[in-house]
Amino acid sequence: MASQLGIGLIGAGRIGRVHAENLAYRIPQARLLAVADVYAEAAHKLAHDLGIPAAYPDHRRILEDPAIQAVVVCSSTDTHAQMVEEAARAGKHIFCEKPIALDLARIDRALAAVDQAGVKLQVGFQRRFDPSFQRAHEAIRAGQIGVPHILRITSRDPQPPPIEYVRVCGGIFMDMTIHDFDMARFLMGDEVDEVYAACGVLIDPAIGEAGDVDTAVVTLQFANGGLGAIDNSRRAAYGYDQRVEVFGSQGMVTVSNNAPNAAVISDAGGIHAPLPLHFFIERYAEAYVAEMRAFVECVLHDTPPPVTGHDGRVPVVMGYAAKLSLEEHRPVRLSEIE
Amino acid sequence: MASQLGIGLIGAGRIGRVHAENLAYRIPQARLLAVADVYAEAAHKLAHDLGIPAAYPDHRRILEDPAIQAVVVCSSTDTHAQMVEEAARAGKHIFCEKPIALDLARIDRALAAVDQAGVKLQVGFQRRFDPSFQRAHEAIRAGQIGVPHILRITSRDPQPPPIEYVRVCGGIFMDMTIHDFDMARFLMGDEVDEVYAACGVLIDPAIGEAGDVDTAVVTLQFANGGLGAIDNSRRAAYGYDQRVEVFGSQGMVTVSNNAPNAAVISDAGGIHAPLPLHFFIERYAEAYVAEMRAFVECVLHDTPPPVTGHDGRVPVVMGYAAKLSLEEHRPVRLSEIE
Amino acid sequence: MASQLGIGLIGAGRIGRVHAENLAYRIPQARLLAVADVYAEAAHKLAHDLGIPAAYPDHRRILEDPAIQAVVVCSSTDTHAQMVEEAARAGKHIFCEKPIALDLARIDRALAAVDQAGVKLQVGFQRRFDPSFQRAHEAIRAGQIGVPHILRITSRDPQPPPIEYVRVCGGIFMDMTIHDFDMARFLMGDEVDEVYAACGVLIDPAIGEAGDVDTAVVTLQFANGGLGAIDNSRRAAYGYDQRVEVFGSQGMVTVSNNAPNAAVISDAGGIHAPLPLHFFIERYAEAYVAEMRAFVECVLHDTPPPVTGHDGRVPVVMGYAAKLSLEEHRPVRLSEIE
Amino acid sequence: MASQLGIGLIGAGRIGRVHAENLAYRIPQARLLAVADVYAEAAHKLAHDLGIPAAYPDHRRILEDPAIQAVVVCSSTDTHAQMVEEAARAGKHIFCEKPIALDLARIDRALAAVDQAGVKLQVGFQRRFDPSFQRAHEAIRAGQIGVPHILRITSRDPQPPPIEYVRVCGGIFMDMTIHDFDMARFLMGDEVDEVYAACGVLIDPAIGEAGDVDTAVVTLQFANGGLGAIDNSRRAAYGYDQRVEVFGSQGMVTVSNNAPNAAVISDAGGIHAPLPLHFFIERYAEAYVAEMRAFVECVLHDTPPPVTGHDGRVPVVMGYAAKLSLEEHRPVRLSEIE
Repeated sequence: MASQLGIGLIGAGRIGRVHAENLAYRIPQARLLAVADVYAEAAHKLAHDLGIPAAYPDHRRILEDPAIQAVVVCSSTDTHAQMVEEAARAGKHIFCEKPIALDLARIDRALAAVDQAGVKLQVGFQRRFDPSFQRAHEAIRAGQIGVPHILRITSRDPQPPPIEYVRVCGGIFMDMTIHDFDMARFLMGDEVDEVYAACGVLIDPAIGEAGDVDTAVVTLQFANGGLGAIDNSRRAAYGYDQRVEVFGSQGMVTVSNNAPNAAVISDAGGIHAPLPLHFFIERYAEAYVAEMRAFVECVLHDTPPPVTGHDGRVPVVMGYAAKLSLEEHRPVRLSEIE
Repeated sequence: MASQLGIGLIGAGRIGRVHAENLAYRIPQARLLAVADVYAEAAHKLAHDLGIPAAYPDHRRILEDPAIQAVVVCSSTDTHAQMVEEAARAGKHIFCEKPIALDLARIDRALAAVDQAGVKLQVGFQRRFDPSFQRAHEAIRAGQIGVPHILRITSRDPQPPPIEYVRVCGGIFMDMTIHDFDMARFLMGDEVDEVYAACGVLIDPAIGEAGDVDTAVVTLQFANGGLGAIDNSRRAAYGYDQRVEVFGSQGMVTVSNNAPNAAVISDAGGIHAPLPLHFFIERYAEAYVAEMRAFVECVLHDTPPPVTGHDGRVPVVMGYAAKLSLEEHRPVRLSEIE
Repeated sequence: MASQLGIGLIGAGRIGRVHAENLAYRIPQARLLAVADVYAEAAHKLAHDLGIPAAYPDHRRILEDPAIQAVVVCSSTDTHAQMVEEAARAGKHIFCEKPIALDLARIDRALAAVDQAGVKLQVGFQRRFDPSFQRAHEAIRAGQIGVPHILRITSRDPQPPPIEYVRVCGGIFMDMTIHDFDMARFLMGDEVDEVYAACGVLIDPAIGEAGDVDTAVVTLQFANGGLGAIDNSRRAAYGYDQRVEVFGSQGMVTVSNNAPNAAVISDAGGIHAPLPLHFFIERYAEAYVAEMRAFVECVLHDTPPPVTGHDGRVPVVMGYAAKLSLEEHRPVRLSEIE
Repeated sequence: MASQLGIGLIGAGRIGRVHAENLAYRIPQARLLAVADVYAEAAHKLAHDLGIPAAYPDHRRILEDPAIQAVVVCSSTDTHAQMVEEAARAGKHIFCEKPIALDLARIDRALAAVDQAGVKLQVGFQRRFDPSFQRAHEAIRAGQIGVPHILRITSRDPQPPPIEYVRVCGGIFMDMTIHDFDMARFLMGDEVDEVYAACGVLIDPAIGEAGDVDTAVVTLQFANGGLGAIDNSRRAAYGYDQRVEVFGSQGMVTVSNNAPNAAVISDAGGIHAPLPLHFFIERYAEAYVAEMRAFVECVLHDTPPPVTGHDGRVPVVMGYAAKLSLEEHRPVRLSEIE
């Protein structure tokens, strides 16, 4: 076992910087050796800020570096699958942001390349590493609530993304609900058989004009009989709302939002608690560290990655099923999608 | 305006006793003059316990009494419509437990009789009078959360009813979800267009054998575009679970469960709060008083009843739609039911 | 055992009306037969409103009535001891509002009269009957928190009483803290040895001019070594604040405030919960019923009253000790007071 | 302004490691250049683990290094004042763990040396940097609760320190309450005039035999009339308990404990929330980062340190006052101590 893992980062955007900072400052076992971005300036700036030894405009420089054993793929979504394939062929272990691709055949090709190369691939569903969702997961696994019967996920963003992004992100199910689809599988410990989506454009007509919806209630039917309801909104006035509840034969586990502090003010107008942490960067700050630490450890200790390529693929299937459900206004089985 | 309202009670069962006690001890403007029950003994016992002047095996004795201006119908569900019609013809104002009937034509005949007689009819959806749901309703009406987008109702019983009851109650949607259907209309201030039901028999196979389900997730589509998700279970290990959330363009109102006390114990094993109030009799104790007080007042002051015959009818339509959705495995519009 | 207890009410003021309504509407075993008040009109109005058969300006009419076995003393504080003595001599069981008297010798004479007559006396410390404080008491008694080490009581009023009342009420310790002194004994299951009071006039200088304080922190030293801290304010902007915490060797029990409803609103400005129930009439509504029911039952079943004359006397001693502590700026032992 | 601050760490024990890790991984503006510890091995191990360039057994090597502009003093308490003096004379800015010394004259000498050298000194009261206490502080400063009237601090440890430590730590007031004394000044924005301490040995007789107490309730009288009550216990069965409340003329701010996650489990036995974060290292993890970041920034930006030498001195005076109060069983003014 090597004491430190040499890592190259591909993509120096917002989430790339989060991972880079965590690798640089929070994970002593990792050594971030290079960053690549097609915008050379972004790569250089990040390298300079964090003291990363090398910065390239071409990710292939990273793939060629023998000191680098693993890559973290944070480039734009449409390049993920390509990067995964190239990295696999170069024999690098891979952490890839979600989704691997929006096209299932494309995902399958990438997963085949990973299989063939025998490298590790971890997909970036960071919410699984949130301490509260972890605790819920453990409690369920330990049987503390008995057999899971009903799952409820509330997942609402503080504000919608720019319309240009809405147009290319693959729709709310691929961009936003995909995390809830992953959470559903993670918590229920079961696969989803069928999906039904009820939706609306209630926040911004421009989102509808872009061919998407901004509000959704998605019903899930699990293989073992459990049921689920996810609700999504692109804009919650009070901020980022990330709650989960699993109800089972012996009890229930509930995860509420996290606040930036525990100071509550009582005055003549009421009792006022702070709003939740602003958005995913803040809410999942610790989760991002934990997922990257888990990736580094699974490579160093040669253990299976905690979130696999298969885990990255299934929520995309669920997204297609939800989309079809919305289009055809009927429940859709996942088996219809393949 | 009369200072006191003479009232006769039809049906001396469990809920009849709740109303009788409230009328006798909690509502000074009411004067409970007689109780009728086909089981004469039950009527006599209740009359004796509460000092009600008269007890009859035949409800017609109540309808003939000129000192009685209003009746409270708590007899078995299959007699409700009949009682409403007879009482209307006798010129009595009527408080009727839900549902008026399971058959829509039967409901319509009863409502027509009420209309013709020009008497008041209030239907027993007591949850509307719960202080927390009232407060939520007011906040929504006052625009505090903006336009309602997403409704969430969790409604779970502490244990399933006896199988004999399951067989005759009309199914989970008519017996249990019907209250949530009413709450949905009450809080959203909007009508439901379409229903989709996903269900399971997860608690007791005997419920399935009786032709019913014990676990359900029901999606609602409202006329103005709002969405709703109701989840039901016939058995929550931790007791009666009655929560509601309405999310709107400007905010959210959330109603959590009520506990019998506010004492929390912290020890080496965790921080332990009390379970919710046991079941509907306890949780809605104040709501039962408030709904009866509202009925008495609407008669005495000649104002419209706060829960009308129409309010009693719509949730039955929703129940049929949910049933059809379950049978045909597709979303069902309420307009298909009529 | 008689099935119903004949009761006479002495004093038709605010708290008298609370007890009268509870006796009339909430406690079937009680029969409120007469009310007396030196203001004859007040007595008549209350009798009329609640259907009480008799109303007198002279309480002796009640004491002479053989159908009346028990009296409820709600007259002005300075007459309590006199009423207790007369009622005892008349052989009536007695419920007396706190305090029995502000003068210890006067209390002792009244308690001696009760003893001699062999009647029951219950003192009106209603907080003991609050469901949350009851639960805390039971948990402590059952050993759930081990040996009590630290007691914390927060007790703050929504607004100060009128200055005329401040002048005659005996001071904050006798008027307000006296309830907390009782709660301290009730929860800790121990007697207080010593008191230290730190005070201020922070709300209204007129209270200081009237010879009283409006803010206090009182330290208690219990016989078994436990410690306590009570804090009082005559004006909490957010309303009536009544919290208690007992910390012990094995854990802690905490009682928070009660809200009128469980509806919480989240908006861009924060998460807003409702203020506590307004004042003692609302907060202790159920406790007033429960204490009166307990009184009626202890008479009917011939069991000891749950709050004795001794329980009524000790908090007055504690009040004197606190007063002396404030005057002499030092800790004062209760044994110095007798 | 230099872009990075060269720092030397004196003392490689538990808290030294916390600061070292924060400086190494969390504060990019800091550059930890050397560590010194009389146990050379401890210094070397820490240097190796974190990649610190130099490790010495003698702190003077740090003081002589011109690349080091600031030192962090984490050596044993009895050496703090000496280190502060030497560092000041060497022209280094100083972060010093609390307390500077237990002897007031010793503190004064150290502060004089700091003054004379014109270096900055920040004392390690990390709780001021906790996000919740920060928020409370800001709310109070902004007038959101009006004029502060009553302060309540609950501060309880999960378990007592070893008896050997109890013997040398200066007693509960110097070791534990000192943090609460600092918090009292920080939140109330006022100085304490007088202290009264009521104490007990309720947890472990060995603590009493060592001349200390393990349970305390300390009353504070502030210069502007405000009152405070601190309660301490050396052992809370449910873990580290760190709560604060400030009640003012217009409202109240309350800080509750922090839990490691937000997962709550409801089952037939109750509703179970997680225990608080274990102890100060976990609870104040972010506060330790924030205080060190504040120190680095105050040096780099040449602004006043947020916690001054005076802030380090006053709580020691309060500790002596509390000790004297306990010994003489009376309230003690701070002016008696000097």
